[in-house]
Amino acid sequence: MRRLLKNCKILIRTNEGYEVLNGYLGIDKDTIDYVSEQYPTEKYDEEKDMGGKLIMPGLINAHGHSPMTLLRGVGSGLKLQDWLNNAIFPIEEKLVPQDTFIGCKLAIMEMLSTGTTTFAEMYDFPYASAYAIAESGIKSNLCRVGLCFDPNIEGKDDIRTIECIELIDSFYNRDFSNSEAVRELGACKKDENYVETIVNAIDTGRLKADFCLHSEYLTTPNVVKAMTDENKRLKACVQVHVSETEKEHNDCIERHGKTPIQYFNDIGILDNNTYAAHCVWVTDEDLKIMKEKNVTLVHNPSSNMKLGSGFAPITKALDMGINVALGTDGCASNDNLNMFEEMHLAALIHKGIENDPTKLSATQILDMATINGAKAMGRDDIGVIEVGKKADIIAINMDKPHLYPAYDIPNLIVYSMQGSDVCMTMVDGNILYEDGKFLTINKEKTLEEAEAIIQRLFSK
Amino acid sequence: MRRLLKNCKILIRTNEGYEVLNGYLGIDKDTIDYVSEQYPTEKYDEEKDMGGKLIMPGLINAHGHSPMTLLRGVGSGLKLQDWLNNAIFPIEEKLVPQDTFIGCKLAIMEMLSTGTTTFAEMYDFPYASAYAIAESGIKSNLCRVGLCFDPNIEGKDDIRTIECIELIDSFYNRDFSNSEAVRELGACKKDENYVETIVNAIDTGRLKADFCLHSEYLTTPNVVKAMTDENKRLKACVQVHVSETEKEHNDCIERHGKTPIQYFNDIGILDNNTYAAHCVWVTDEDLKIMKEKNVTLVHNPSSNMKLGSGFAPITKALDMGINVALGTDGCASNDNLNMFEEMHLAALIHKGIENDPTKLSATQILDMATINGAKAMGRDDIGVIEVGKKADIIAINMDKPHLYPAYDIPNLIVYSMQGSDVCMTMVDGNILYEDGKFLTINKEKTLEEAEAIIQRLFSK
Repeated sequence: MRRLLKNCKILIRTNEGYEVLNGYLGIDKDTIDYVSEQYPTEKYDEEKDMGGKLIMPGLINAHGHSPMTLLRGVGSGLKLQDWLNNAIFPIEEKLVPQDTFIGCKLAIMEMLSTGTTTFAEMYDFPYASAYAIAESGIKSNLCRVGLCFDPNIEGKDDIRTIECIELIDSFYNRDFSNSEAVRELGACKKDENYVETIVNAIDTGRLKADFCLHSEYLTTPNVVKAMTDENKRLKACVQVHVSETEKEHNDCIERHGKTPIQYFNDIGILDNNTYAAHCVWVTDEDLKIMKEKNVTLVHNPSSNMKLGSGFAPITKALDMGINVALGTDGCASNDNLNMFEEMHLAALIHKGIENDPTKLSATQILDMATINGAKAMGRDDIGVIEVGKKADIIAINMDKPHLYPAYDIPNLIVYSMQGSDVCMTMVDGNILYEDGKFLTINKEKTLEEAEAIIQRLFSK
Repeated sequence: MRRLLKNCKILIRTNEGYEVLNGYLGIDKDTIDYVSEQYPTEKYDEEKDMGGKLIMPGLINAHGHSPMTLLRGVGSGLKLQDWLNNAIFPIEEKLVPQDTFIGCKLAIMEMLSTGTTTFAEMYDFPYASAYAIAESGIKSNLCRVGLCFDPNIEGKDDIRTIECIELIDSFYNRDFSNSEAVRELGACKKDENYVETIVNAIDTGRLKADFCLHSEYLTTPNVVKAMTDENKRLKACVQVHVSETEKEHNDCIERHGKTPIQYFNDIGILDNNTYAAHCVWVTDEDLKIMKEKNVTLVHNPSSNMKLGSGFAPITKALDMGINVALGTDGCASNDNLNMFEEMHLAALIHKGIENDPTKLSATQILDMATINGAKAMGRDDIGVIEVGKKADIIAINMDKPHLYPAYDIPNLIVYSMQGSDVCMTMVDGNILYEDGKFLTINKEKTLEEAEAIIQRLFSK
């Protein structure tokens, strides 16, 4: 089906920055096939009047742990180690695959209703997440989290490493008969065509599997080496946490005589498309390596401030030409999945820290929340509104006092807009959210199921 | 009329912090007369089912320049002096009283729709603002901005000083026959009962007049002295900008051998209820004076970051027991009037800067946005939900994915809630905004009138 959106303001990326074009946006199935001020000469099957709304690219959340929505606000105000060990881990120990399935659906509702169309996912039970994602119509790169505490175990013998590889292979082969897939998917409430649903999401490119190392401090050199070797064959993107806290950064130097970035680089894992979350404490030398190896820095301003971790050197990274994307991190350290908040924070805090209002333009911020995230996740078909790109777009109702006057729309998006100004979210040409309604997720049922999980998790 | 809100979650302030009570909130005309989990024994004229919504105190914006909504986004990304001299001042020179009237109405719509019930106003043409405020039903302390550039002129001969005093006197005497009042009110589209409307707002305490000194650098010692003397009689609150930028702070030391706070204190203006915006560069000595003189520090995190001014020493001020309130500043350096954003920013940035997640609890942040602002503005009848306080409350629709789960509601308000989650705003018992509709302002007409102003201001 071909659909024409008419009467819209369209945010387009030119070589100079963002511009707004008043006109028409045509969609052929899942792909943008027309962007112009002129009414098209070719006929579309359907016309949708957007009533002057702003159409912009869907936002890309390049780092998170979506099922942590279930833990929103848990342990707020605690120091990082206290927060992890005494608030988060004791609850996470009780989690089962069904919880990831429901927690991920909760997160997807929040993301769709605040304009996110693609997200990076790093959490336990990835097959359960995969099914929630496939069902909902949103786009995601997910992974099995690499974790290993025994320095003597060989990478090829480590169970999590084996499962990391297995996940990527299962996606390549569309084969979900491995025991972990069977166990996780068995725990999800699913219809009989669930394999077809997942396979379709993989076939269309909506769902991708990445490699993942939790971090230097929660893995071992053997495991990093094994994944590096396997990724010569698999060529998947790699998700990793890097230098989030000063302690973690310094501990790595003490253990290995190198920073985390140097350590990972020396083993070779950065030779693939790596996106590194946080990078608060990276050195100038680290940034040079990141630039050389095309490592994306995923900036998570809310989480880094809420946990007291600090401020990543974003202006320096941008000046060096490093690809900088944006992420929310998990909901327990944020406590939301609202990319408009991350844009706003990223735009403000570095001006404050550097005492320089010229830092981080609206263009740079919008790039971070869209095309830079797409690049991080190995997706060159999203992140901008352009003929030939996928129809991953959101619509904004501009008829609100806080969005008037609208001299400078990129500026307005970054500094004045709220996540809840999003009134329509479309992925691959399908409307998933419109005017407060979720078209692929039963909100009431999901909230009911979440409530039962919460009762269980928080019972003594 | 007595109205009972039932089926609500009510945010109350106890000695320990904030708690949520499930129950009933009774209102007698403009005053809260019942808060309980039990259904009242006395009968109310009307019952309103709130459907489980959260009722919390209306937010108090303790620093701003509301008509600058007309300049939202102008000069974004410029350095402060460049921004003021080349972007803002050339447009402000064209402003007439009618612009303040409409700009203020635009601002009031944004504030009501994002949960603000009281705001501090510092801008030109205060009588025009007074009428917009009186008509709309919102609450405000406004002022004539004290400005003087000639160090030789006596305070009693300075026209702005005379007008500052005249404004406060006109409020005391309910007399709007002075030439400035006649000129400004003459420019507003008003009905024939406009004097009655303003007088009623003053009589009920909704509208108050403050003294105002723009700043040390835009006034003279003579003027500060004259206002100090006059305020022994008038006993009004005093609004002032203090140590916003490093340059301004250091220039003052160079001119007077004192910091701005020391300078103001030595002349005596701080002996009244003073609320000082910004205070980014105040010294430890300044903070001691502020504590001793009960000066409120009004923190404006967005504006201070956007203009690259820096970070006010908020945790130090709180530790010393200084009253800290929150403000948005004007819309051209923010670019919104959304107090939920200011709460979120204030809660996050100081944790980041001090590398300490235990700083600034949700309780401290909520106090800053409510009772501390009330105290700053000399209003002891607002800022908390309590029997005997004015019914200045807002309702939040909690049925949204980003507000679930709600283990810890104060935390949720600060970190997860958006201004647009506000679905009802009430001032003095009157509903002014509900479900996207403004009940005292004609939104379409105001936007139309604003558009005409904008065409004029931005024409070459």
